Amino acid sequence: MFYHDNKLQYTVRVDKPNPAFANMLQQAIGGIEGEIRVCLQYLFQAWGSRGPNKYRDMLLETGTEEISHIEMLATAVALNLEGAPLSLKEEMAKDKVIGAVMGGMNPRHVLSSGLAAMAVDANGVPFNGSWVVGSGNIAADMYANVMAESTGRLLATRLWEATDDPGMKDMLSFLIARDTMHQNQWLAVLEDLGGVKGVHPIPNSFPQNMENQEFNYTFMSTQLECKPEINERWTEGQSIDGKSNFKYVLAKPHGQEPQLGAPDPRGHAQKEQMMGSAGKGLVDKVKDVL
Amino acid sequence: MFYHDNKLQYTVRVDKPNPAFANMLQQAIGGIEGEIRVCLQYLFQAWGSRGPNKYRDMLLETGTEEISHIEMLATAVALNLEGAPLSLKEEMAKDKVIGAVMGGMNPRHVLSSGLAAMAVDANGVPFNGSWVVGSGNIAADMYANVMAESTGRLLATRLWEATDDPGMKDMLSFLIARDTMHQNQWLAVLEDLGGVKGVHPIPNSFPQNMENQEFNYTFMSTQLECKPEINERWTEGQSIDGKSNFKYVLAKPHGQEPQLGAPDPRGHAQKEQMMGSAGKGLVDKVKDVL
Amino acid sequence: MFYHDNKLQYTVRVDKPNPAFANMLQQAIGGIEGEIRVCLQYLFQAWGSRGPNKYRDMLLETGTEEISHIEMLATAVALNLEGAPLSLKEEMAKDKVIGAVMGGMNPRHVLSSGLAAMAVDANGVPFNGSWVVGSGNIAADMYANVMAESTGRLLATRLWEATDDPGMKDMLSFLIARDTMHQNQWLAVLEDLGGVKGVHPIPNSFPQNMENQEFNYTFMSTQLECKPEINERWTEGQSIDGKSNFKYVLAKPHGQEPQLGAPDPRGHAQKEQMMGSAGKGLVDKVKDVL
Amino acid sequence: MFYHDNKLQYTVRVDKPNPAFANMLQQAIGGIEGEIRVCLQYLFQAWGSRGPNKYRDMLLETGTEEISHIEMLATAVALNLEGAPLSLKEEMAKDKVIGAVMGGMNPRHVLSSGLAAMAVDANGVPFNGSWVVGSGNIAADMYANVMAESTGRLLATRLWEATDDPGMKDMLSFLIARDTMHQNQWLAVLEDLGGVKGVHPIPNSFPQNMENQEFNYTFMSTQLECKPEINERWTEGQSIDGKSNFKYVLAKPHGQEPQLGAPDPRGHAQKEQMMGSAGKGLVDKVKDVL
Amino acid sequence: MFYHDNKLQYTVRVDKPNPAFANMLQQAIGGIEGEIRVCLQYLFQAWGSRGPNKYRDMLLETGTEEISHIEMLATAVALNLEGAPLSLKEEMAKDKVIGAVMGGMNPRHVLSSGLAAMAVDANGVPFNGSWVVGSGNIAADMYANVMAESTGRLLATRLWEATDDPGMKDMLSFLIARDTMHQNQWLAVLEDLGGVKGVHPIPNSFPQNMENQEFNYTFMSTQLECKPEINERWTEGQSIDGKSNFKYVLAKPHGQEPQLGAPDPRGHAQKEQMMGSAGKGLVDKVKDVL
Amino acid sequence: MFYHDNKLQYTVRVDKPNPAFANMLQQAIGGIEGEIRVCLQYLFQAWGSRGPNKYRDMLLETGTEEISHIEMLATAVALNLEGAPLSLKEEMAKDKVIGAVMGGMNPRHVLSSGLAAMAVDANGVPFNGSWVVGSGNIAADMYANVMAESTGRLLATRLWEATDDPGMKDMLSFLIARDTMHQNQWLAVLEDLGGVKGVHPIPNSFPQNMENQEFNYTFMSTQLECKPEINERWTEGQSIDGKSNFKYVLAKPHGQEPQLGAPDPRGHAQKEQMMGSAGKGLVDKVKDVL
Repeated sequence: MFYHDNKLQYTVRVDKPNPAFANMLQQAIGGIEGEIRVCLQYLFQAWGSRGPNKYRDMLLETGTEEISHIEMLATAVALNLEGAPLSLKEEMAKDKVIGAVMGGMNPRHVLSSGLAAMAVDANGVPFNGSWVVGSGNIAADMYANVMAESTGRLLATRLWEATDDPGMKDMLSFLIARDTMHQNQWLAVLEDLGGVKGVHPIPNSFPQNMENQEFNYTFMSTQLECKPEINERWTEGQSIDGKSNFKYVLAKPHGQEPQLGAPDPRGHAQKEQMMGSAGKGLVDKVKDVL
Repeated sequence: MFYHDNKLQYTVRVDKPNPAFANMLQQAIGGIEGEIRVCLQYLFQAWGSRGPNKYRDMLLETGTEEISHIEMLATAVALNLEGAPLSLKEEMAKDKVIGAVMGGMNPRHVLSSGLAAMAVDANGVPFNGSWVVGSGNIAADMYANVMAESTGRLLATRLWEATDDPGMKDMLSFLIARDTMHQNQWLAVLEDLGGVKGVHPIPNSFPQNMENQEFNYTFMSTQLECKPEINERWTEGQSIDGKSNFKYVLAKPHGQEPQLGAPDPRGHAQKEQMMGSAGKGLVDKVKDVL
Repeated sequence: MFYHDNKLQYTVRVDKPNPAFANMLQQAIGGIEGEIRVCLQYLFQAWGSRGPNKYRDMLLETGTEEISHIEMLATAVALNLEGAPLSLKEEMAKDKVIGAVMGGMNPRHVLSSGLAAMAVDANGVPFNGSWVVGSGNIAADMYANVMAESTGRLLATRLWEATDDPGMKDMLSFLIARDTMHQNQWLAVLEDLGGVKGVHPIPNSFPQNMENQEFNYTFMSTQLECKPEINERWTEGQSIDGKSNFKYVLAKPHGQEPQLGAPDPRGHAQKEQMMGSAGKGLVDKVKDVL
Repeated sequence: MFYHDNKLQYTVRVDKPNPAFANMLQQAIGGIEGEIRVCLQYLFQAWGSRGPNKYRDMLLETGTEEISHIEMLATAVALNLEGAPLSLKEEMAKDKVIGAVMGGMNPRHVLSSGLAAMAVDANGVPFNGSWVVGSGNIAADMYANVMAESTGRLLATRLWEATDDPGMKDMLSFLIARDTMHQNQWLAVLEDLGGVKGVHPIPNSFPQNMENQEFNYTFMSTQLECKPEINERWTEGQSIDGKSNFKYVLAKPHGQEPQLGAPDPRGHAQKEQMMGSAGKGLVDKVKDVL
Repeated sequence: MFYHDNKLQYTVRVDKPNPAFANMLQQAIGGIEGEIRVCLQYLFQAWGSRGPNKYRDMLLETGTEEISHIEMLATAVALNLEGAPLSLKEEMAKDKVIGAVMGGMNPRHVLSSGLAAMAVDANGVPFNGSWVVGSGNIAADMYANVMAESTGRLLATRLWEATDDPGMKDMLSFLIARDTMHQNQWLAVLEDLGGVKGVHPIPNSFPQNMENQEFNYTFMSTQLECKPEINERWTEGQSIDGKSNFKYVLAKPHGQEPQLGAPDPRGHAQKEQMMGSAGKGLVDKVKDVL
Repeated sequence: MFYHDNKLQYTVRVDKPNPAFANMLQQAIGGIEGEIRVCLQYLFQAWGSRGPNKYRDMLLETGTEEISHIEMLATAVALNLEGAPLSLKEEMAKDKVIGAVMGGMNPRHVLSSGLAAMAVDANGVPFNGSWVVGSGNIAADMYANVMAESTGRLLATRLWEATDDPGMKDMLSFLIARDTMHQNQWLAVLEDLGGVKGVHPIPNSFPQNMENQEFNYTFMSTQLECKPEINERWTEGQSIDGKSNFKYVLAKPHGQEPQLGAPDPRGHAQKEQMMGSAGKGLVDKVKDVL
């Protein structure tokens, strides 16, 4: 169950509001690298956790923290939108800075939200629930989490570069720090689960002798012309999961030319399609009906 | 530039067509864990690569291989749909097996594609380009790739469990094997880049002294009641990236109560919203207009 | 800022797991009438609130409660999926009940989430951030909230009818009760704002004399044949906002035939499109280029 | 059945074309607050109406009127795009006004539609059918309609503020007037249905004694720190639907810690996940297989 | 401007309601091959038409007819849902026919719409405005229209095959007939515009001497192994637009290996990425900052 | 199966990088008129082809070529983004050209991809798998392909007009040439299938005597006022498919007023809805329950 107080997790201060930066911040709210995604991802992983409980507990903690991050960023968007131009009147467009700002603004911050944050990214594309990864396999989920925090921290550093507002830089330095911790935290779970050799190949509960043994540690080159060096880390030596050795082969087909059955007349392909060698008989049925 | 021949990368054989399994296979084609995603992901990462070239080359190779996987799966869907029921006529629904199969089928395999694969997942939700991750940071991208191959291999093992068709099990054992290789391959790049200590926190090119030092290796507990054990791998000891030590603190607000400016009268909030302490002056302007 | 404990807001008990009901419950999680929507809607309205503060406080409270509702429903989905069939093997499809259940299941509960809830609706369509309404106008937002709680309570009563599991019926009777309260609560804000006469037309801060006075309380009938009764509540008598009287007129055009300029040659419409009366001159320019 | 003539419902005149305003108008066409949404919403509600017929008739009338509004707005977009810049050539960008306009334009108005309206919003996000609400409950639907007309009128007033083109202001004053009428009209249906006390809680056909009686008129505070005033309209006194009295309580968990079953080995979670107290037995089965 | 009466364009009669067929009919309402798409497509093409007016008039006529088709289909869905099972209670699932029907139903027809049509397809995926094609080029639009009516008629014939309800078959035979007309109608416009030789290549207003002359009538084979017959209609002889002759060549690269600049340090790629030959200088700048 | 080399199909050269043009190019990558769409469309059509094989082979060839086009365009985007502004710092906005460019840029090219192409369109809307048309009917598919190449060539000519960069113009002249070929190629298949008279109405395998004979070659006018000329190509004379003659009629209803059954009480409509003439009996049942 969840509770709140009325304060922010960390200070949000905007020294010089900038509506174009408000739009950029939306990526950290409703974008695929953003906080709604990690918040729901960690909470759904917790709510679907079937043990051990210590992982569930930890996911619940950090998922809850992420709600506070959305709150900080939504506040930052609203503060950056203070004083934003609400119209396209001609005299405003003539002002160079306002013109540039208007170009970088999201018009829906004026039209739809009344100068507040929305559940969308920096292109106005709405947050999408398909981004919430919870697979039921804790190692796969931890890699999803490391990846989410990595692209999230990358986004935060790019936002940090994009602004020279001291308040925004301070808030971002907090969020960057939290992403550092969260990357380490999900890596700690992976270490706890046995490290790379313990968790890979993910899932490690599938009997590995049932996978095709010829191709499971083989780099297949689809290059036709100049071949890559074959003494790369991924073409020879022990595999990273320690369970085999890398091999290198040129890709070639191991399968047949695909041959599908003739179309079913009730599916109403063109007559011509039913006259191939396979479809001859069927087209007669059609003729009967016509 | 790309080329093809007319054969499949590996044999695709369906011993007993099953339209409900055809639907399940769609998850491996157009789903977030599927092959269109990894194919475009590796190719876009290659096409945006700004060096070193050996990573670009490798991404291009494996991205090309994934096209061949989509081809195999699309062929498998078409073969599983042979003989599928095309109507809801009553006598058919009375047959138990057909009834169950019809429940598990995608009606659009009949209505839209004429018994062929589509660019959708097992719920008929179309493939979405937002799933294609290419961040410009190779370590973040490699984690995205490990994660994609992990959820992809997990999906393939679940499909393997869901069928008892020997042909399908054989095809899946090939795809599972390739996912084993690909997981190892992206991990090999991470090792090549310096391993966990070299690549984290991602991005490792942001000056770490600019991030907030109080919070970057601190586990913040949002739990109110029973506190978690604080001697977990993620609450004490050296951080996984080797750059600091984990700490454990109870979460508390470090920020203010958020206070936004009053609404701009031209945004047409309700009058009542403009009568708060901050909005008094503005509402007078509105009155003048009314 | 947000906190949690490890318990649920209200007991979640499933007496007889039913994977088809698990799928139906997804509508209450990730559907447009569901809890992720109201949770984010109330929180974003709070975070964008520009006063008076008492509304912001209340939105934050109820938004926080809704996170606990998502948690309850996600737990209910996971419990309903216990023992779900993981395969399409033929003997299972022959069992009538299992067959029906498989038809009603979401295959992604097996393939993607490993028998856990996802951020999708009962068709597997992902939650979409466009559903989160926060307009910056508190009266519009309160109607959005009444509507969300109305379709939400309607959904909960339909789920209550769809199951005969006593545990699920008990959980739903709690959620239905909360929706009763929340409907009343948002109506209370509307009363607090002056009731129907005070808040309408929304927004009430636009100078009403600037709207077209001929059409603002007029029912326009587009019916060609049999005319509706003209003594309905919406065709005569005082308007509901008390600001005018309803009128009834037959719809007729008050505007011109639309006439757009000719296409710009650089936009490459067909030549024929540029040969209309308006486009003659332009097509000569094209000829010069060709 | 539907008919048309070649005129517009109301004059559409653009005195000074502005491609950035054309983009803003798209929100009123293909946005969630826009006219395609209300048009389809009223028509689908009519087509699914199961009586009384007078509501169906009225929905059909207003749904038909909304098609004429889309037509007006689409014409307005096309007229605002006349003379829009079709290229990014450098000399143009140097002109301040053109530069600003280009920033605010939708590039797809040049690239995809050839200077015509599209079925998208002001961010280019396509219209989405999920926004069309028709629940089968007329009171819920009327609130959805009041809300749609409220956010729609709000949008129209913001567009009115954003332009100083007299033709556009005149068209918008017509649309604002119609939204005034439509708000009143849907409220009239609610009054016709018995008013707030008659229709709430929605649906009013669910036996209210089946909802949990402890929580259905209780404001639950999730605030940890400073408590809200408890003599607000929503914390004491008669409930708005007149069926009970508001109460105020501090939120606390009424449920258990969630405990899910162990993962099914066939779902291929990591081995570690199957070794929790609940999963011990299952992991032995896995060992047998390996 | 638009008008209506209260009757349907053609009789809609359901002799034996079937909720699974109701779901299939949704494809013809909200699917990409469905009537909302063609309705909006023809209307948007009309509203954006810049002459000649006769095409605009015709588009408006047929767009208006399509609204009446949506109305017929929505009515058919509602009639097919009469008596649909509203619950998953066990005794019902045991009935073979009901079980099959439940599997083929859309649960949102029960949960969300109360047994009425929705703006979604047969997978419950919402209608999407991106499907509405209006390019500003009348020939491209006519091909889009022929294609829409072709996939639409194909869908209608498949629905006709899927049902044995005489009422539904009668309604579908009407809709199939209208699609025959509409295919012919858009082809008539293409003939009116000059036929294949007049309209192709689309757009025909681009100066064709500006396109690369080596490749514009050349079939490029990407096949590596067995070459296709080179005396196909598309490899030799006059081109269909009559403007050149087909040629056949083996595909080979005409371009360079792509070489992008080094990453900008402010974008925070990994350090390793900036150490390629091109990036050396830049990484020094990074070092200065660190 | 698929292969590649490291070169581009045709030279990609950017003389003067322009980040706003990079954004425009995204339409040709991830837009509905773009190359991901045609690539997947031709490949899925090939993979689902049920004969004759020569069409399958050809689709595979051109689908493979389109991958090379995505590669060229993705490279062009990356090259146009070199040196793009990464921040909103004030001094930059003051520069007129940079200001205009920033307005036309996609902020996610900075924030999400690190100056590389993404699988999105020029509004940042992600590529959507629903655009991939493969119907199982080769004539319908060929029209879909002609249409895709027509809107694709139109887009390419508009991009050609929008830039004055010689490198970009050269690349586009290649792509425009290929679209010329591809339009001709799909038309050649249609000719091969028997031309307009052979393929229409699509599908030509439905027994045409089963369609309603009164309406299948009849232009129905929904115009109320001024009637169109009735001697247009589509109102009289032989139909284009040569199978009948066009007729012209005024549209009128051929169907009844729709009458749906009363709502099912378990669906919880409002009580008032169940009190219509049809619903009387049902509401008594509700009363019993209450």
